[in-house]
Amino acid sequence: MSLMVVGTVALDDLKTPAGSIRDLLGGSASHLSMSASLFTQVNLAGIIGEDFPDRHIALFKKKGINVDSIQKIPGKTFHWYGEYKKEDLNSAITLKTELGVIPQYIPRVTSCQKKIANVFLANIDPVTQAKFLSCVSPKFVGMDTMNLWISTMKGAVTSLMKKVDLFVLNDAEARMLTGETNIVKSAKCLRAMGPKIIVIKKGEHGVFCFSDKLMFGFPAFPVENVVDPTGAGDTFAGGMMGFLSKVNKVNEKSLRQALMYATICSSFNVEGFGVQKTSILTKAMVEKRLKIFIKFISA
Amino acid sequence: MSLMVVGTVALDDLKTPAGSIRDLLGGSASHLSMSASLFTQVNLAGIIGEDFPDRHIALFKKKGINVDSIQKIPGKTFHWYGEYKKEDLNSAITLKTELGVIPQYIPRVTSCQKKIANVFLANIDPVTQAKFLSCVSPKFVGMDTMNLWISTMKGAVTSLMKKVDLFVLNDAEARMLTGETNIVKSAKCLRAMGPKIIVIKKGEHGVFCFSDKLMFGFPAFPVENVVDPTGAGDTFAGGMMGFLSKVNKVNEKSLRQALMYATICSSFNVEGFGVQKTSILTKAMVEKRLKIFIKFISA
Repeated sequence: MSLMVVGTVALDDLKTPAGSIRDLLGGSASHLSMSASLFTQVNLAGIIGEDFPDRHIALFKKKGINVDSIQKIPGKTFHWYGEYKKEDLNSAITLKTELGVIPQYIPRVTSCQKKIANVFLANIDPVTQAKFLSCVSPKFVGMDTMNLWISTMKGAVTSLMKKVDLFVLNDAEARMLTGETNIVKSAKCLRAMGPKIIVIKKGEHGVFCFSDKLMFGFPAFPVENVVDPTGAGDTFAGGMMGFLSKVNKVNEKSLRQALMYATICSSFNVEGFGVQKTSILTKAMVEKRLKIFIKFISA
Repeated sequence: MSLMVVGTVALDDLKTPAGSIRDLLGGSASHLSMSASLFTQVNLAGIIGEDFPDRHIALFKKKGINVDSIQKIPGKTFHWYGEYKKEDLNSAITLKTELGVIPQYIPRVTSCQKKIANVFLANIDPVTQAKFLSCVSPKFVGMDTMNLWISTMKGAVTSLMKKVDLFVLNDAEARMLTGETNIVKSAKCLRAMGPKIIVIKKGEHGVFCFSDKLMFGFPAFPVENVVDPTGAGDTFAGGMMGFLSKVNKVNEKSLRQALMYATICSSFNVEGFGVQKTSILTKAMVEKRLKIFIKFISA
């Protein structure tokens, strides 16, 4: 089954120890759709400005990603300027954020897209996520969020959590939302807030998955040459949702597989700037690395 | 085959969110020998003062731990006063350290112990570790260290590293020693410094193992009720070395098993104060939890 994703479609300017680069294709929905498109047909919804390069749209199309619900309006595309320091490649430093056309976004989808079975609310403000959700009638909904929305719009985040099946967030966000430092307690707390499945991303330390019926975890795939971690979490969510949408079944087996594929996709993401690596990724490359990973974690 | 361990035998006074407690049996060698004794016959070497309670010696003996090389001399036992705050149960705050008799320690072992095949140099200053090593002629040597020795006696640490087969340390220590934040690069760097096998402990995030021929990792066992993490790393090393000593073979299979047993032993350690849990641990309890862990990490 296909997948519909809403989130930011952005331009990123990056400074990293591996170099600096401008006008990269960025944004939660962009990263997410790259990895998701390896597994299923992806429909992308979001807003861009007139400055958004045609080459980025062409890339989406090349990957088979439906862009009918990307709205292009006068103004500038959401632009993020970030930096990563050698001392801590896992923490992004925001130098500047230009919202551009983002505040003018009123989610709309095509009539065909209204019936899509799987929806993922990638990182964008929770009010927009909720508005988007009211446009569609999916069978399975996943969501992500970020520290900014937890600190400034917590009510909207927790209200949205009641309406989703799967909630993916990172460990620091889980701590912010629940006040719990222990990951098991934190996951239980998040489960009680609504979503049936809780997926806590721990960056270089892997992932922890919790529901009423299951609890499991994997380390991350060990990447030696990290170039740019931007979008690793979105790429992770894309691999997970892409796989779950394809198999169209959510149980322990499919969740374990989905999170392993997610782990592999995000390991490729950090090896290049922006979507450099994930945009040229093939299923065969993923399967090859998955085999290595399964050996890596085997008992 | 049996195992000989040198390290600190101490008294700990602890403040944790779960309560305060005094004169606990502590020290790297004490924690280590508890878990190691589940797998093999353990010989303990270290120094204590006259204030060291008989009940702690009785506990060692009850666990079948040979205490012939624990020297008791006039003066006070090494005493650590520590605190753990709710916000970060994984980071110990040292309130006070009383070295007591530690500076007077001149390692000695019995003539039988000189021939023991497996030796572990648990955390104590690297000069004492080296002196101990010169008293014995083992086939396999493991070592641990801590941030204090890396910052104050780095030369002695790196010199000792050349003489050991296995080096176990935590991720922060690996970073301190190598200047590398990436765990793969850091492990390669440590390998180049001497030890054939590098085991990097990541606390609640699990463990990473590296040698010329292998690379693997596991998450930690998810513990919901952490009472006191003191000695978790030593308990981990004890489970690992105890198992390796028992099977008397170091290859990928035995290392994977050793690190899983180590993971399970340390998960019990954090559930009680001091050695409260590990001193009553049975092989059956370990095997039961290991089964759950293998399911937790299965692909």
